[in-house]
Amino acid sequence: MNKREIPKGLRDLLPDEVAVKRSMEQKAAALFTSYGYREVVTPTFEYLDVVEAGTGGDIRKELFMFMDREGGILCLRPEMTVSIARLAATHMQDENFPQRLYYMCNVFRHVQPQRAQYREFWQLGIELLGASGIWADAEVITIAAKTLGEMGLIDFKISLNQIAIFNSLLNDSGLKEEDQNRIRNLVERKDLVELSRVLERLDIKDAIKESIALMPVLHGGLEVINRIPYAEHNRQAAEAIGELEKIYQALKLCGVIDHIVLDLGVLRGLDYYTGVVFEGYSPDLGYGLLGGGRYDNLMGHFGFPRPATGFALGLDRLALVIDRPQELPRRFLVGGTDFAAVVAEADRLRQQGCIVEMDVEGGSKEQLQNKLQGRRDYHLIYLGED
Amino acid sequence: MNKREIPKGLRDLLPDEVAVKRSMEQKAAALFTSYGYREVVTPTFEYLDVVEAGTGGDIRKELFMFMDREGGILCLRPEMTVSIARLAATHMQDENFPQRLYYMCNVFRHVQPQRAQYREFWQLGIELLGASGIWADAEVITIAAKTLGEMGLIDFKISLNQIAIFNSLLNDSGLKEEDQNRIRNLVERKDLVELSRVLERLDIKDAIKESIALMPVLHGGLEVINRIPYAEHNRQAAEAIGELEKIYQALKLCGVIDHIVLDLGVLRGLDYYTGVVFEGYSPDLGYGLLGGGRYDNLMGHFGFPRPATGFALGLDRLALVIDRPQELPRRFLVGGTDFAAVVAEADRLRQQGCIVEMDVEGGSKEQLQNKLQGRRDYHLIYLGED
Repeated sequence: MNKREIPKGLRDLLPDEVAVKRSMEQKAAALFTSYGYREVVTPTFEYLDVVEAGTGGDIRKELFMFMDREGGILCLRPEMTVSIARLAATHMQDENFPQRLYYMCNVFRHVQPQRAQYREFWQLGIELLGASGIWADAEVITIAAKTLGEMGLIDFKISLNQIAIFNSLLNDSGLKEEDQNRIRNLVERKDLVELSRVLERLDIKDAIKESIALMPVLHGGLEVINRIPYAEHNRQAAEAIGELEKIYQALKLCGVIDHIVLDLGVLRGLDYYTGVVFEGYSPDLGYGLLGGGRYDNLMGHFGFPRPATGFALGLDRLALVIDRPQELPRRFLVGGTDFAAVVAEADRLRQQGCIVEMDVEGGSKEQLQNKLQGRRDYHLIYLGED
Repeated sequence: MNKREIPKGLRDLLPDEVAVKRSMEQKAAALFTSYGYREVVTPTFEYLDVVEAGTGGDIRKELFMFMDREGGILCLRPEMTVSIARLAATHMQDENFPQRLYYMCNVFRHVQPQRAQYREFWQLGIELLGASGIWADAEVITIAAKTLGEMGLIDFKISLNQIAIFNSLLNDSGLKEEDQNRIRNLVERKDLVELSRVLERLDIKDAIKESIALMPVLHGGLEVINRIPYAEHNRQAAEAIGELEKIYQALKLCGVIDHIVLDLGVLRGLDYYTGVVFEGYSPDLGYGLLGGGRYDNLMGHFGFPRPATGFALGLDRLALVIDRPQELPRRFLVGGTDFAAVVAEADRLRQQGCIVEMDVEGGSKEQLQNKLQGRRDYHLIYLGED
């Protein structure tokens, strides 16, 4: 090991990168605050049991796990929604609901590192806890769209689905869990070839087969939701379709409909989603920027059942598609032979709102000029001889 | 285990607590920026070897350690200075020095939890890398004092020492490392009784014995630094005393001298300090608020030797002594029977800079009024019937 190496999949953020990150966080925080959301902070690690109770056991292969000296089995948090549900169930039982909460923090996954996919990565997001109904979902989706807008994205889309459509079809199919998971995975990955091969071999009703085969390709406006043959035979699917239509109409009122695409193939990986789900992406980028949805059963795991909906956005990926500031902020370097004068001048400029470095090493005017050669962002003030 | 329990020594921060934390961070960030410092972010965990190379091996008993699946031995960072030295040695070799860097983040210690001492806690701090000389130290100490001032503290002190005074005396004593460490520990803890008992038994020169016994009680203004009998026999001690005097004079020029107390018993725990060290505290609180000093040998561990100085401040302890905001921000709750009108009114108010929650559940006017009973921070706007 090189003696200054950092662990695989991690990285340092240098000042220009942190400036971009902080700027995104400030824009999001201002937006979330204007909708009444308030920030919370949860511990960086949780008991493994708490995380698995929320996310489902499948996530364990992506967790960093360790122990404390009291024998507790811990893991670095892999996402924030479970922790915030736990927080609200612990501390907010006596408060008015709905509660609007947001977070801006790091989460951890032991994944194979790739471009913009690290083992520690930065997220921000909101959770609207204790509210059911389409207006709660519409608010969350609207804020998701406006967040991307605030970051300067123009040409982005949010694909929207209600997973009860797919799930109620699967429930009616009578398939074993293993086959259900396989199909779910193929639909999510939009692997049409393998999906049709797998469906062909399964002994399920033709209308269900046909409906599932359509899911990955049904995307667009309201026209797509009436093209699922089996929906008329399944009350839950029909209700879910009706809800999706209402949310679509609500998003028109909220002024973000230009960014919305219905996509019946969006299922989201995590176990806790129960209703509307959505993903935001930019055509410039091969992977999602944000994701979210309704998770009405999660808070019940923590003894305080409440409906809930929210989204999370990945800052590392977003940083790849937003425009960076072109101009560096102007900086002063104040040097000179008389430190009393240098300190006074530096303080005077700072009081005017300037960024001022003091030459703490007492360099000559020529030394300082040489140092700043080619640095158009610096302005030298040298007090002394001349 | 209660199913929503969090690991020992950790905690959730609720919205009012996060607001205080963010407010402190913003004030500090503005101050640090005005002095030319730029924020960096390092990974939450590092290789154990990297941390121990920087801090010395004694810290291991306080580390949370774990492994990745490539067999790397990792630990949650116990402090930030080592990581920032590593970052600069990795990424900044081609840049102009000095570099001014700051951070605002969480660090981790497996300690016995106490009031305002958690296993995950929040710090902010600065590092001035690549600058030697008293003006670099004076800048860092000035910023430390101004940070506490910006947070609203008035009656705080920063106790200042140069650890080479004590260390060069110990070196001359000829004592074994074990005895040296014991004495260092007693001086730091200001345990005068035990210190005099231990010194009595040791076979070292009387002038050294007498000087060491004085260290924990020498605090005040410039008058204390000429009261060390042995200093005239030790060039290094005499030089360190001279440097401390110059820094004291520099801090007069910097306008923070009212907060400075010389204290020859301040030694700081971490191994990496080499020169000036300091601690900030408030008379209201039994423990330190900030600490720092010069660490000229640390960057050399990462193959890029440079002098350096800095400080770190603990936000959790500071939060206990600052005044909390008295007034909650004013919030609107907009409800009504016509969601199109509700959405429009909420957006209009947000555009004026208001914090606006929308009643997503479509409650009646009476229901909303009941909900806001006693909440003087909320203003209800109900659109509809009347």
